Amino acid sequence: MGNSAHPLPGAPGRVLGIDPGTQLTGFGCISVHGSEIRLVDAGVLRFNSRQSIATRLVELERDLDELVTTLRPDVACVEALFAHYAHPRTAVTMGHARGVILLVLRRAGIPTIEVPATHAKKALTGNGHADKSQMQRAIQWQLGLNAIPEPPDVADALAIAMAGMRHPEASEALSLR
Amino acid sequence: MGNSAHPLPGAPGRVLGIDPGTQLTGFGCISVHGSEIRLVDAGVLRFNSRQSIATRLVELERDLDELVTTLRPDVACVEALFAHYAHPRTAVTMGHARGVILLVLRRAGIPTIEVPATHAKKALTGNGHADKSQMQRAIQWQLGLNAIPEPPDVADALAIAMAGMRHPEASEALSLR
Repeated sequence: MGNSAHPLPGAPGRVLGIDPGTQLTGFGCISVHGSEIRLVDAGVLRFNSRQSIATRLVELERDLDELVTTLRPDVACVEALFAHYAHPRTAVTMGHARGVILLVLRRAGIPTIEVPATHAKKALTGNGHADKSQMQRAIQWQLGLNAIPEPPDVADALAIAMAGMRHPEASEALSLR
Repeated sequence: MGNSAHPLPGAPGRVLGIDPGTQLTGFGCISVHGSEIRLVDAGVLRFNSRQSIATRLVELERDLDELVTTLRPDVACVEALFAHYAHPRTAVTMGHARGVILLVLRRAGIPTIEVPATHAKKALTGNGHADKSQMQRAIQWQLGLNAIPEPPDVADALAIAMAGMRHPEASEALSLR
């Protein structure tokens, strides 16, 4: 990855944000080059809720492996665990997906930052408790998108990437490319 | 796997019990042949708590893959999610390990039964709230072991296997070998 062909020093780095879930896992990949941030790809990995959790986890592993191979992120950012849970059972189920996500990223040697949801919300909107539609509009504006990112899980994943890229470990990984 | 060399009809089936954790995952494998139940192997997978959860999950995947290849269980039994959690954060972290365990077992094509801890306790001691030492002594007696299984996670994993093997899905998987 030489940088001679690029007008700015250094090649753009890629940050992959992930919002884990066992029904829907949002992902969003941005390229970062100085202050220039562009959308590379974003979407959701959907899992059939009629299938067993084990089967969904196998699909999640396969889909995320593919995504990482295709997008080649330099850094990954994953939504951090909450400190408090209104719905412990849902949180534990989410923990299953998160475990597989951390496994795949670690195996692929991708440095991974854990980003609290409130941190991502605050970084994007100034409000740590912004609602879904505020987050979607903030992401649309910041990345200059033609449409609101849908479903909200996509905006959340992109917000996690945009907040996480400011983390010292992420900056370091991006500068070490 | 013919059965002609064996005195009882059918070859013994193997049931692997797992008690998931990110610091310590207990495992216990029993062979079941009619009413004859024997210990095949049991122990714990230990993870260095100073390492990142991602690194521990990669080790868990590798160790469990090895275990499954060596022990070749016909059925696996994993401690079920609790309905209520006193320590949600610990439970969510445990969910990470459990996600990787379900992934590895599903990939290996091993039918997996989820066994509630209270069910395992009740099946072994008649008391769904038996303490660790009661469980250890019950396992020692039922499997005719010379020593108390240590640490308690080993006894828990064996109890999960012994309760899970009575499940209709487990019986079916054992009879279909």
